[in-house]
Amino acid sequence: MPEFLELLPPEQALQTLLDNLPVQIEPEEVQAEDALGRVTAEDVVAPHPLPSFARSTVDGYAVRAADTHGASESLPAYLQIAGEVPMGAAPDFSIAASQCALIHTGGMLPGGADAVVMVEHTQSVREDEVEVLRAVAAGDNVVKVGEDVAEGEQVIPAGTRLRPAEIGGLMALGVNRVPVARRPKVGILSTGDEVVPPEAEIGPGQVRDVNSYTLGALVEKAGGAAVRYGIIPDREADLRSSTRRALAECDLVVITAGSSASARDLTSQVINELGPPGVLVHGVDVRPGKPTILAICRDAGSGHARPVIGLPGNPVSALVIAGLFVVPVIGALMGLKARPRPSVPARLALNLASQAGREDWVPVQLQRESGGYRAEPIFGKSNLIFTLARADGLLRIPPDATGLDAGEVVEVFLF
Amino acid sequence: MPEFLELLPPEQALQTLLDNLPVQIEPEEVQAEDALGRVTAEDVVAPHPLPSFARSTVDGYAVRAADTHGASESLPAYLQIAGEVPMGAAPDFSIAASQCALIHTGGMLPGGADAVVMVEHTQSVREDEVEVLRAVAAGDNVVKVGEDVAEGEQVIPAGTRLRPAEIGGLMALGVNRVPVARRPKVGILSTGDEVVPPEAEIGPGQVRDVNSYTLGALVEKAGGAAVRYGIIPDREADLRSSTRRALAECDLVVITAGSSASARDLTSQVINELGPPGVLVHGVDVRPGKPTILAICRDAGSGHARPVIGLPGNPVSALVIAGLFVVPVIGALMGLKARPRPSVPARLALNLASQAGREDWVPVQLQRESGGYRAEPIFGKSNLIFTLARADGLLRIPPDATGLDAGEVVEVFLF
Repeated sequence: MPEFLELLPPEQALQTLLDNLPVQIEPEEVQAEDALGRVTAEDVVAPHPLPSFARSTVDGYAVRAADTHGASESLPAYLQIAGEVPMGAAPDFSIAASQCALIHTGGMLPGGADAVVMVEHTQSVREDEVEVLRAVAAGDNVVKVGEDVAEGEQVIPAGTRLRPAEIGGLMALGVNRVPVARRPKVGILSTGDEVVPPEAEIGPGQVRDVNSYTLGALVEKAGGAAVRYGIIPDREADLRSSTRRALAECDLVVITAGSSASARDLTSQVINELGPPGVLVHGVDVRPGKPTILAICRDAGSGHARPVIGLPGNPVSALVIAGLFVVPVIGALMGLKARPRPSVPARLALNLASQAGREDWVPVQLQRESGGYRAEPIFGKSNLIFTLARADGLLRIPPDATGLDAGEVVEVFLF
Repeated sequence: MPEFLELLPPEQALQTLLDNLPVQIEPEEVQAEDALGRVTAEDVVAPHPLPSFARSTVDGYAVRAADTHGASESLPAYLQIAGEVPMGAAPDFSIAASQCALIHTGGMLPGGADAVVMVEHTQSVREDEVEVLRAVAAGDNVVKVGEDVAEGEQVIPAGTRLRPAEIGGLMALGVNRVPVARRPKVGILSTGDEVVPPEAEIGPGQVRDVNSYTLGALVEKAGGAAVRYGIIPDREADLRSSTRRALAECDLVVITAGSSASARDLTSQVINELGPPGVLVHGVDVRPGKPTILAICRDAGSGHARPVIGLPGNPVSALVIAGLFVVPVIGALMGLKARPRPSVPARLALNLASQAGREDWVPVQLQRESGGYRAEPIFGKSNLIFTLARADGLLRIPPDATGLDAGEVVEVFLF
């Protein structure tokens, strides 16, 4: 398939790949305390209600609400103190009519009690008696059994990326092991005769490998496990053998093409011969990143089909495009349900032109101004990695726009 | 200091703590490829320019721009091909007047050349001659030496949290080791006689420890290293000895108080006796989280002063307040320069009341609707951890508002 017979819009290109994606990868079980950022492989169901006993939400007196009816400052209800509820244990007594129990926040209601009067609404009379100055209704100042979660309730759906709050929820339920998607192994191949390892001194005409490391870091952030296959020379045999190895060993293969047109042709040719069905998308209507390749290839050894993504060799294009395609594919392999993508609204500092039909991603710096942020585009050729390092995020110019006007409020997607 | 003599607004409370924060912690050197998410401890300065040689940005012919003056489709300039530029090496030839060189994207300009003509604007005549159909100016289609970064330029300031783009920038410059702030050790103590470890079966009146794990996960996300000191009973001697140990071993100590007023009093008393200057803020005008304690205490052994934060025991309050105080303190200890906090604009689904003067944080779910998101508040008592697990983020009601109206566009801060 020669380059750019047809340029697909980025969303359609991604959807084409996702529609053809092989089934998601298998789950593994991990300790809940180590599961931050992992994606649940099954629904988590509550093994018991939360809370598991009726708890007071205040410091005060556990009562029968009926005993407080009509109580007021001028006409208090007098209740006999039957005992004090210990923290962390069931009270060994119940309360009868006209009785109450001293209780602390989080304490378990004794038998017979159905509400709690806040200590601020009581007055001490004698050691074993209290004046209640305000009426309560049944359930007041009490968390009922199952008020947070009912037994058997689905509390965390499959496909959820676990945040601190979910880790806490698992702990509260005593769910100490949780099935999560295995981290997809993402093979990263950097190609180009001019590319040398970052620890090398560079000679004239040489550049250090940037893409293996920017992409590796992005993959790790997205929840994958990056496997670097190093720098592959622009020779068909080398590229083919390295790509085959990565396809056999990984769940997703990402190749950054050499920067010349012939090197890009070589990449697409090798990907296409890797296994069926081959290249699905070659060329995306986006800047930077037009020469992007999206493919599914079957590994001859295992018989498994895997996504293969060919990225432009320019470091800026490679990183921007990886955000658009590699990150969502890693999520899809894990069965991740998308959450809203965080952004920051900002006022555009100057006019930006764009070509109708093409989606543009422009690196911007955000400057604080009264009432929010101002977005200052950073211009630079797409092989200048520090245009991204200087940026706070990316601004999207949608395909149907021919540009954006200074002063417009735009969404900036943070890295 | 008894509880709530004076409630400080959250921003002022945080500033009080930050103003009194001891100097930031010492740096350590790590491999650049392992530095994702770490915070630079010094400015990074470019050891050489980027690129280090003039490179072509296109496939085409390197030329002397003057030789193309006036060239057009009808009146092409004829140039003799002096050679082909190899990828990854300096060309072993220069070009003279009326000469050019075949060059690929990323190739090094040969001596004598000052611009590149795109291959699309040329026509092959003979093996050693090409027609140039369009004029170029000096510098066209060329990245100049130092166009990305000049030698000696400060490329990454101290206090930067390293993202994939910065990792790439370090690699491009061959900066393979980078000084970063050591991860602050954050000691976490969970108190309460009713609290049992998450792996325990719960008896009546008992709840499992949630805070050690939600806070531990939050600390790790913020770049700290969580050290869990376990569950401390509500006894002065136990709390004092555990807190002293944490103060001696950590850079920041976080204690979640038992839930009753007396347990909270105990926590503030122990913190205040831990070392001078002691409690700086006791009580913040925020919901949830009013009983928050912010302190600086000097460890008697080392003589070092450390921040100590007392959080409410309710899991929801503890996690929300930790986001407001623990996360920024971890950042400050690392010398982190704040970047914009990501949020999502959303249309509020219903009216929310609030008390003037108090800042409220309300968990919300985000639902897609045409043109954006709708924010649906999740109501629940502040000890129900799943109110947070069900939420996409938190909505802030500022202190000067008495509420928010349905339909208002609000900022939702994602977890």
